[in-house]
Amino acid sequence: MFCGTQFSIYPMSDDFVDVILGSIGPLQHRDDIRVETDDLSTLVVGTPNAVFTTVRDVYAEACRRGGHVVLSATFSRGCPGEPDDPMCVPEKPAEASASKAQLEVVAPLAIDVAAQYSLYPLGIPSYMDVIYREIAEAKKAACYDRGKNFCTRLKGDLSDVFAVFGRTFESAARETGHVVLTATVSKGSPSQKQGG
Amino acid sequence: MFCGTQFSIYPMSDDFVDVILGSIGPLQHRDDIRVETDDLSTLVVGTPNAVFTTVRDVYAEACRRGGHVVLSATFSRGCPGEPDDPMCVPEKPAEASASKAQLEVVAPLAIDVAAQYSLYPLGIPSYMDVIYREIAEAKKAACYDRGKNFCTRLKGDLSDVFAVFGRTFESAARETGHVVLTATVSKGSPSQKQGG
Repeated sequence: MFCGTQFSIYPMSDDFVDVILGSIGPLQHRDDIRVETDDLSTLVVGTPNAVFTTVRDVYAEACRRGGHVVLSATFSRGCPGEPDDPMCVPEKPAEASASKAQLEVVAPLAIDVAAQYSLYPLGIPSYMDVIYREIAEAKKAACYDRGKNFCTRLKGDLSDVFAVFGRTFESAARETGHVVLTATVSKGSPSQKQGG
Repeated sequence: MFCGTQFSIYPMSDDFVDVILGSIGPLQHRDDIRVETDDLSTLVVGTPNAVFTTVRDVYAEACRRGGHVVLSATFSRGCPGEPDDPMCVPEKPAEASASKAQLEVVAPLAIDVAAQYSLYPLGIPSYMDVIYREIAEAKKAACYDRGKNFCTRLKGDLSDVFAVFGRTFESAARETGHVVLTATVSKGSPSQKQGG
C-alpha cells in the first residue's frame, strides 16, 4: 500500500510565512514519514495513521498561533499523477484491507473548526454505494453538520473531525485499493456565524 | 448534466476579508449560474464553461489586489455528498459527451501562477487509462511543469493553466458521467523560487 497526502496550510495574515514554517518545520526531523515541501504543498508519505495524525498535529500547531487558518489536504492511496512510478499501481482490495490500521484517537484538542470533505473510491462501478454508506456513518458522529453539493460538512473539535476523516478513509479502503479523500478545515473564520 | 464547483480564495494577508468579498461579491448579480457562499467555500453551478471561467475570473480579481493569494477548487459533474438530490445521479457517458462544451479561451491575463491538479474519473475500472491519457495531453501544454505524487504541476499564465483544467475535465467527461478535478493555484508565493 502506498499512502500519503499533499496538504497546505493557509494562514490569513501578514505573518503567514512564520506560521507555515513554524508548523511544518518539525516534520524534517521525523524518520517514520517521507516529507517533501514546495511552494504549493507538503507531501507526507507513510502509514494511514502517521499521515492523518501528522497533518492534524501540524494544523493544530498552526491554529494555536492564532487568527484564521485553513487546511487543505488530499489524502490518497495511490498516485494517478505519476504513471512511471511502480508504487502508483492500485493495490487489490484484499491487500488494502489487510493493511488496515486504526487512526490514533486523541483527547479533544480544544480547537473548534468547521470542515468539509469528499470521498472518491476509484475504479469501482459501485463507488456511490461506498460514498452513501460512509455519509450514513458520518451522520452518527457528533461533529456531523450537513451535506453540501459535492461534499459533507463537519463542525466541532479538530480531533473529532479528523477521526471522521480517518475512519471514512479506512472504511472505504476495504472496497477498493485506490481511495482519495479531500478535506478543507477552517479555524477562526470571521464569517463562521453567517455561514450555514 | 449537473456541473459545478466548490471553491475558496485564500489571501495570505490581514485584509483577507476585503479581498475575498471584493472578488466574489459580483457573483451575486449573475443569473446564468447558481451561487451559494458559506464560511468554507463558494458553490457555483452552471455549464462547464460558466463554472471554469467564473472561478478563473474571481481568482484573477483577487490576484490583482496584490500579495500571496491561493485558490482551492473542486470541479465536479455529480455530487456524491447529497444522495437525496436527483441531480446527483451520474449521467451516462453518452449524455455527458453530447453536452460537451469548449472552455472559453481568453488572452493571457498577465498573472503568473503555480498550480497543481488531480483528476478523478469515477465509476469506471479503466479510470487510470483516462488519467494517463490526460497527463500525456497536459504535457503538450506550454504551462506543464512536472508530476508530483498524487497530482500534476503547472506554471504560467492563469489563462493557460485554466485552459488545461477545462480541457482535462471536458475530455475525461467523454469516458464517464462523473468526473472530479481538484486544483490548487498560487500567485505571489515568497517560496516559489525555492519550490521545485
